[in-house]
Amino acid sequence: MGHPMNDIPDSPAAGQRGPADHSIRDQIVSAADEHFRHYGYGKTTVSDLAKAIGFSKAYIYKFFDSKQAIGEAICTNCLKEITDNAAARAAEGRSAPDRFRRLFRSIIDDTAEMLFQERKMHDIAAASCAENWGSAQRYLAQVAAMVERIVLDGREAGEFERKTPIDELTGAIMQVMKPFMHPMMLELDLDDIPERSGAVISLVLRSLAP
Amino acid sequence: MGHPMNDIPDSPAAGQRGPADHSIRDQIVSAADEHFRHYGYGKTTVSDLAKAIGFSKAYIYKFFDSKQAIGEAICTNCLKEITDNAAARAAEGRSAPDRFRRLFRSIIDDTAEMLFQERKMHDIAAASCAENWGSAQRYLAQVAAMVERIVLDGREAGEFERKTPIDELTGAIMQVMKPFMHPMMLELDLDDIPERSGAVISLVLRSLAP
Repeated sequence: MGHPMNDIPDSPAAGQRGPADHSIRDQIVSAADEHFRHYGYGKTTVSDLAKAIGFSKAYIYKFFDSKQAIGEAICTNCLKEITDNAAARAAEGRSAPDRFRRLFRSIIDDTAEMLFQERKMHDIAAASCAENWGSAQRYLAQVAAMVERIVLDGREAGEFERKTPIDELTGAIMQVMKPFMHPMMLELDLDDIPERSGAVISLVLRSLAP
Repeated sequence: MGHPMNDIPDSPAAGQRGPADHSIRDQIVSAADEHFRHYGYGKTTVSDLAKAIGFSKAYIYKFFDSKQAIGEAICTNCLKEITDNAAARAAEGRSAPDRFRRLFRSIIDDTAEMLFQERKMHDIAAASCAENWGSAQRYLAQVAAMVERIVLDGREAGEFERKTPIDELTGAIMQVMKPFMHPMMLELDLDDIPERSGAVISLVLRSLAP
């Protein structure tokens, strides 16, 4: 799963600045991603990074105002891949319950695969949690919006109950899915993810029954 | 919430040994609890503890074979208080759904109150998680048994659906409640616990509807 070089961000990300030269910005992000995966995000400085990827530190600062801004751009790419995959897999569903199940299967599979290698969490994920980066907040809002869309479609099609306020419902669903989406919660409990999350998805779908 | 001195453990706890003198054993546990709350569990040695509570180290080792055994006894007391309160509050319920709601309200309130003071986790809870102590495992098994009892009673009374295999159901319920019961998960997200857990309890009860 690479990071396409020609993706145009949906919204200007925090801490990005300078010329609107997406190609160079993306080159920096992509090279930084590689570097952090090998050497860790926490221990690397912008100087280390500049040396390793062959740009001057000043040049990197033309595009990003801090290491965190580069980190958030990496996270945004990674999370966009998760939501793109999830949207594509959910769209193949034959019904709202089926779409719901596919959505979370996709998110949960990708999350575990992207964030953990050999049960060790990519430390950029830990930083994004600890510092509550905007990239993660935007991602959760996007997933919540996808959940809400499926629930509303299911209600319209008579597949789901219509009594519970939609905000409470979406909030409760995001809450029960959190242990499979939040990197630090996931790290506490990496065993049997497909079985445990499958049972929770089924519980949610029973709760949605009309 | 004190620790009654005359409680007889339900089962012999790991690492306890020596004379069946419950009064002295409980005195050690109670004094150690106080001491750990002030000075931390992680940093305290059995020698420190012996000095502080006025017993010889050798005497303490007549009753407990390690610091962890004392820690587990403290946890077992604390968790017994949580399950006793929960059982008592659930028993006041007028129906299975009402008992279910009371059970988890009680557990969640007590957990946050007992394990966190000023949002800082008692470090004995962190140790019990990190080292997967038997005290926590027994506790979770007890809560799961209480959940199963309520679900089976509710099924018998026609209040809950009867199709889902009981093991899957109990497992899924314990999973969705975990972020409010697991000290390290709870620490990641201490805001709005009553609202968030209330929405999850309601979701579970909708999923249980016949």
